[in-house]
Amino acid sequence: MAATTWVQDFADGRREQRELLGGKGANVAEMTRILGADKVPAGFTITTEACVAYMRGERTLPDGLEEQVAAALARLEERAGRRLGDPQDPLLVSVRSGARESMPGMLDTVLNLGLTDASVEGLAARTSNPRFAWDSYRRFVQMYGNVVKGVPGEAIEEEIARLKREQGVVLDTELDVAALQELVTRFKGLYERTTGEAFPQDPQEQLAGAIRAVFDSWTGDRAVQYRRINRIPDDWGTAVNVQQMVFGNKGDTSCSGVAFSRDEVTGEPEPSGDFLVNAQGEDVVSGVRNTQDLAAMAQVMPDAHDELLEILRTLERHYGDMQDTEFTVEEGRLYMLQTRNAKRPAQAAVRFAVDAVDEGLLDRSQALLTLDAEGLETLLHPTFDRSADYRVLGIGVNASPGAAKGAAVFTAEEAVAAAARGEKVILVRPFTEADDVAGFHAAQGILTSEGGKASHAALVARGMGKPCVCGATDLQVDLPGHVARIGDVLIREGDLVAINGTTGEITTDDVPLVEPSQDPAMAGVLERFETVLGWADELRVLGVRTNADTPEDAAKARELGAEGIGLCRTEHMFMEADRQPKMRRMIMAGDEAERRAALEELRPLQQADFEGLFEAMTGQPVTIRLLDPPLHEFLPKKEEVGEELHEAYAAKRYHRVGVLADVLERIETLSEANPMLGTRGVRLGLLYPEIFEMQAEAIFAAAVAVRSRTGSAPKLEVMIPLVGYERELELMRGFVVAVADRHGLTIGEDYLVGTMIELPRACFLADSIADHADFFSFGTNDLTQTGLGFSRDDIEGKILARYIEFKVLDRSPFETIDTPGVGQMLRMGAWLGRKTKQDLKLGVCGEHGGDPDSIAFFHDSGIDYVSCSPFRVPIARVAAAQAAIRIPLGERAGRATD
Amino acid sequence: MAATTWVQDFADGRREQRELLGGKGANVAEMTRILGADKVPAGFTITTEACVAYMRGERTLPDGLEEQVAAALARLEERAGRRLGDPQDPLLVSVRSGARESMPGMLDTVLNLGLTDASVEGLAARTSNPRFAWDSYRRFVQMYGNVVKGVPGEAIEEEIARLKREQGVVLDTELDVAALQELVTRFKGLYERTTGEAFPQDPQEQLAGAIRAVFDSWTGDRAVQYRRINRIPDDWGTAVNVQQMVFGNKGDTSCSGVAFSRDEVTGEPEPSGDFLVNAQGEDVVSGVRNTQDLAAMAQVMPDAHDELLEILRTLERHYGDMQDTEFTVEEGRLYMLQTRNAKRPAQAAVRFAVDAVDEGLLDRSQALLTLDAEGLETLLHPTFDRSADYRVLGIGVNASPGAAKGAAVFTAEEAVAAAARGEKVILVRPFTEADDVAGFHAAQGILTSEGGKASHAALVARGMGKPCVCGATDLQVDLPGHVARIGDVLIREGDLVAINGTTGEITTDDVPLVEPSQDPAMAGVLERFETVLGWADELRVLGVRTNADTPEDAAKARELGAEGIGLCRTEHMFMEADRQPKMRRMIMAGDEAERRAALEELRPLQQADFEGLFEAMTGQPVTIRLLDPPLHEFLPKKEEVGEELHEAYAAKRYHRVGVLADVLERIETLSEANPMLGTRGVRLGLLYPEIFEMQAEAIFAAAVAVRSRTGSAPKLEVMIPLVGYERELELMRGFVVAVADRHGLTIGEDYLVGTMIELPRACFLADSIADHADFFSFGTNDLTQTGLGFSRDDIEGKILARYIEFKVLDRSPFETIDTPGVGQMLRMGAWLGRKTKQDLKLGVCGEHGGDPDSIAFFHDSGIDYVSCSPFRVPIARVAAAQAAIRIPLGERAGRATD
Repeated sequence: MAATTWVQDFADGRREQRELLGGKGANVAEMTRILGADKVPAGFTITTEACVAYMRGERTLPDGLEEQVAAALARLEERAGRRLGDPQDPLLVSVRSGARESMPGMLDTVLNLGLTDASVEGLAARTSNPRFAWDSYRRFVQMYGNVVKGVPGEAIEEEIARLKREQGVVLDTELDVAALQELVTRFKGLYERTTGEAFPQDPQEQLAGAIRAVFDSWTGDRAVQYRRINRIPDDWGTAVNVQQMVFGNKGDTSCSGVAFSRDEVTGEPEPSGDFLVNAQGEDVVSGVRNTQDLAAMAQVMPDAHDELLEILRTLERHYGDMQDTEFTVEEGRLYMLQTRNAKRPAQAAVRFAVDAVDEGLLDRSQALLTLDAEGLETLLHPTFDRSADYRVLGIGVNASPGAAKGAAVFTAEEAVAAAARGEKVILVRPFTEADDVAGFHAAQGILTSEGGKASHAALVARGMGKPCVCGATDLQVDLPGHVARIGDVLIREGDLVAINGTTGEITTDDVPLVEPSQDPAMAGVLERFETVLGWADELRVLGVRTNADTPEDAAKARELGAEGIGLCRTEHMFMEADRQPKMRRMIMAGDEAERRAALEELRPLQQADFEGLFEAMTGQPVTIRLLDPPLHEFLPKKEEVGEELHEAYAAKRYHRVGVLADVLERIETLSEANPMLGTRGVRLGLLYPEIFEMQAEAIFAAAVAVRSRTGSAPKLEVMIPLVGYERELELMRGFVVAVADRHGLTIGEDYLVGTMIELPRACFLADSIADHADFFSFGTNDLTQTGLGFSRDDIEGKILARYIEFKVLDRSPFETIDTPGVGQMLRMGAWLGRKTKQDLKLGVCGEHGGDPDSIAFFHDSGIDYVSCSPFRVPIARVAAAQAAIRIPLGERAGRATD
Repeated sequence: MAATTWVQDFADGRREQRELLGGKGANVAEMTRILGADKVPAGFTITTEACVAYMRGERTLPDGLEEQVAAALARLEERAGRRLGDPQDPLLVSVRSGARESMPGMLDTVLNLGLTDASVEGLAARTSNPRFAWDSYRRFVQMYGNVVKGVPGEAIEEEIARLKREQGVVLDTELDVAALQELVTRFKGLYERTTGEAFPQDPQEQLAGAIRAVFDSWTGDRAVQYRRINRIPDDWGTAVNVQQMVFGNKGDTSCSGVAFSRDEVTGEPEPSGDFLVNAQGEDVVSGVRNTQDLAAMAQVMPDAHDELLEILRTLERHYGDMQDTEFTVEEGRLYMLQTRNAKRPAQAAVRFAVDAVDEGLLDRSQALLTLDAEGLETLLHPTFDRSADYRVLGIGVNASPGAAKGAAVFTAEEAVAAAARGEKVILVRPFTEADDVAGFHAAQGILTSEGGKASHAALVARGMGKPCVCGATDLQVDLPGHVARIGDVLIREGDLVAINGTTGEITTDDVPLVEPSQDPAMAGVLERFETVLGWADELRVLGVRTNADTPEDAAKARELGAEGIGLCRTEHMFMEADRQPKMRRMIMAGDEAERRAALEELRPLQQADFEGLFEAMTGQPVTIRLLDPPLHEFLPKKEEVGEELHEAYAAKRYHRVGVLADVLERIETLSEANPMLGTRGVRLGLLYPEIFEMQAEAIFAAAVAVRSRTGSAPKLEVMIPLVGYERELELMRGFVVAVADRHGLTIGEDYLVGTMIELPRACFLADSIADHADFFSFGTNDLTQTGLGFSRDDIEGKILARYIEFKVLDRSPFETIDTPGVGQMLRMGAWLGRKTKQDLKLGVCGEHGGDPDSIAFFHDSGIDYVSCSPFRVPIARVAAAQAAIRIPLGERAGRATD
């Protein structure tokens, strides 16, 4: 049997090998291919398969790996004309992680590997730059100790700070050769004290250690947490890229930087980025030193700058997407170290899509596929009200768009705790690290005093669509003191802070946030967004409706492109303050007559609700679901009534005690062990037909009134919830038709009657249920609850985290539909329904209707439309188009063929 | 288009036409065919289809029916040589209902139809028996008025009673011709006052009215209620049989009676029955007059008696089953009016099955199919302890076997109310009617002062398997006074009464009830039952295990034929008094260490439980399910703790207040909106692995201990509940195996690990779940709850009755499996599981495992075994055999073929 190939030279790879080589390895190989070997430092990739084998083998390097690395290294040495560890002219390499999906900052990297006490002297002599050589060596000892052997970062920083104090200098760059030599000695001492071993002087040992460290970092806590949040499978593993070092820290003709082919925040068609002269790449992304804007490079290193811009154009054309690159200029010569499709905020993504089509770079379908549908929601989020009077205390880097405000907190833990209490917070930090990611989720926005657009804070916030202002140099954060200062203002924990990630503004005034539609700065973006949505509407097959219970929501959704109401939950109408007492009187009724009297009071109110809804949705279908929740949801909580009763008793208000006792008794009668599986939906309709009758009366009276008032008849669809048996729907349909008859309305012409499909049994019996249905709407929330036996209320808090930790789930099944289980139930229901009625209209009205991954599944399942909350409508339109592009109509499942 | 045939002569029918002609019509036709036309009075049947058409047509007789009835009547008149309504020599007919399934007493019958003021005189002259003629006429006017026109029965009885008082007589038979003529006059007056019309003198009008009345009785309240209880579809309709009258009331050479081909209570191979000289059939079944035993007929009418016995033998051979017949002797000549397979108590059914095989009448399969598996449970029920000292206050007719005791109640309503309060009652009545049926369900047993083995009370009680003593002549029941007297004892409502339906004994002593196994009188029956069960075991394919949590239950079930434990619910072990405090301490634990300490105390107790179970089940498989219910089920109720806290506060026991407050807090934390869908089963196992670890420890330690003590290794199967995801089972399996490893036990050899399949998702993903399972056990209770979205606790009380009323359901889906929904999920799970593992062992451990209808479905689905409560084991064995006889192995579904 041939031995497995664990190692591949950059020169032999291509971008399609992403799974094997990781994103970085595949892209470096691709760049080598298209830019030429002289533009990309040579090297090789140890495959993700090697990492997987290493993990499976309980952290032993797989057979053959060491030999293959040695051979690849020999080829690299030959190509470079230098040997690793050569005391005269050493080859130095970087050892970088590179997973299939980018995990910025999560996995380990070691630079300058190959330096030893001997070879540092050779490097100094060869480059005639002892300071560079010793700076490189101290960086290597520092990084190797920290990354490979776990020497604490604080201890390292403490050594540097102490030496700088001793030397009386402020900047690292002010340390001279002797000081750097002293630092190496102190680092090696620290290394020995920490690990009990001397710092390794064998470059092969260094290399093996670094490779293991990268493999190990895959299963480190930070990486595991990141993968959990970003749903990256644990068994992918990471590749390891060993690459000849080039040096941005060789003096003033050298630099390191990151460059985007277009502005990474706005999407404007101008390259952007940051760079630092006489620095290595780590200095740029760490955010420790404040970087220079890429434009400034045109002055400092014009040739390299021109070449870089040309390469960015080449790469963008080649990849057909905005590129995010890393480069180094070594003594005037440009090297490309990495490229990848740029993560970008929604406004930049939309701008790129529109510009790329205008430029002829992409067609509309291709352009749509560059969008992250989920992230587009940020375009709908508020910014500062520019007409408001507020004091700008400072301006930082506009790192992730959108405005946010909340109470200042200074730790991720506090952000999480406050969010759990329902408070809105802004996470304020000097800079952020992987450990802070949980705090990003909990916060409204992120504010840092250090770092640029490529800093950790900026990258993560953009990925999440959270507003972020970073590198705010006017801000001083005192972490131990739990305070910050900006200008003359002291910010204590809990004080209000507002940030605008689109402009970089920071204030402590309670500035109103305005919707993007009212924000002039967003005008161009929203126009482009409209353009993109227009393409989506041309390309998509799925209809997009909205879940709306009020005329206001309906109007908003329509503005956002909804093609009708897919779900109006009539119960929400009963929750309003003026309805609740009437609803309660209905529920407290002793008999049917009393109940009917109470319902009679509710009827005109419901009718007015429906009239408003119909008028807001003229010309578009409106699906009204009859009462669904159990009646006890409309009664006050037992504890509250009990307390009130005690109070009334203490106050000797005995009549009141009697009234409350009756309420308690009714609550007791109506209480259920499992209300989710209890007296709800159609069961209520069969138990108290008078309730559904009142609703049907209100619906049809409203339809007739609106038709005669506006001349336009509502496109009415009456929906029966929680049907499990054909007969339930048959009875309710007959019942609704009888009421409609009284209003002279004809089924099939003036209105339709359909059902929710939200019970597993309904999916199995969908063929007979379809006999009585003009449409199905899959209630995927309840279908998930019953199909998985998961009560949403109970599971998301207690079980979900553990299940993700144990890799049972990668996300909540209420967020993205569980395709192999619930999804197959839905497909069975769709298929059987269409077996009975070839053209049965099929919708989805669970929250999955606004989730892009679920939308792709629904498209593929032959569903006709999804219905989602108003703000999700644009996302659904784009996601539906993307699904249609990826899965052409003819290839969809779900159409019955027999 | 040919007109539909609505009418068929008896001479043209056969037994296979039951659906069209009803049971009575088909059997009368069959008897005509095999006994000859001279043994069965001629007539014709109006089909069930005519009834269905009548109901669909809103109570108009279907086209052609009247003409066809007229033609059939003409044929009947020709055959009889008499004309309906002929003033000289009238033909009289009976008009009887006859549905597909017998509905005794629920549908209407009119006798003596054709009598008018004119023809009664002709009949009197022709028969030279004016008393007979006038008695027949008064019966007709009475019955027609009551049945066809709704004249109240009490008003009729009142007229009779008044006349008897006036005449100074006691018995109906003492009324002379003049008195009967007076009675006819008074009945006609009552008829006219009630209906506003004169009593019809046109026999054709009478006939049409009677046919309509029978049709209408199908939709009467009594019939609807009966069908609901007996699960007879409403759309079957009833046939109407019009038959020439023969008269058992023509004097002392005439009689009417019912006869069984074997003793209908014991099954002894001797014909039995009741008859009444000079009476019509209604007198026999109404229980109003006390009947004579059939044996006495040998003296009174020896020829007719001999002929009847010969006919009974013929019919039994022909039908291959015990027959229940009605006959009339008219002036010495025997006529058979009806035959059907006899309903019979379990002891008679078992005796017949064994005797029929011994006699060569049936083979074992045929004999097994004559049994009602459900009803066999009565054989396992108690009788009076014969060694006990109790005073027999009276002996009635032993109408339905088994003993019962409880508080006396005198109305069905009170029986229902008391049962709802959880009380055990005996329903005491003079006689019973259809309206009382609900009370039968609620009562432990039934006691009446009137009627014989063919009375309503006897028939219904036998059908339900309820003990019944009827015709207790020493008993006087004072309904208005709510008291009864037997001998010198007064029985007030609520006083204890005990009855023995096997012997007819009645007492008011609190006599102990004894199990049948300890009852010498049942010895022969139980032996025969063993014989029958032996046949069942030979023929059945399904295994039968038991659900048992204690060694006692296990031993009982084994005695009843269980082939292992299919479900041991370990949680029940924690509910015992000595375990509860420890369990609560475990749940109240603040951290894992505390929890482990509490578990350590529970472990030896669990181990002892398992040892007992293994020893009780030596050589047979024992399936142990790890903890399933949510933890809060082990804590006290919130209200109780709250009350105790208030009391402790009032008593200034402040330390106790603090303790209780902690408990309340824990209850609050653990409380769930829908516990059924919450933190249960495998979810608990993943959240608190230490609980499942303790259980696994106890199980394996017990297995090792029992093996070394007894030399016999338990056949151990560990079962994980509520699995929905492959990964859940993979994790738990690994976990259980790790514990077993510590005990040196090997999976596949020393034990198996399997899972419950009780979530719809698990059915859909059964192929991948099967990768980690040695067996599946379908938990059909929970699969019903989730598949239908029905919380059993909430639905059975509130929704079920309405759903049966609205014909959504015909019974609870928790009683018999919902085959098109839940049943198909089970089949999908079975099929997918076996697709992965051809020989995957499949069981069912929901309560459906003891339900004969469900068992047939499980057999057909390829399930390997069912598991049910100990007392259901024999029923399951018989039901499994019946299923195997009806559905041979090769025709079963559910075996994967690819």
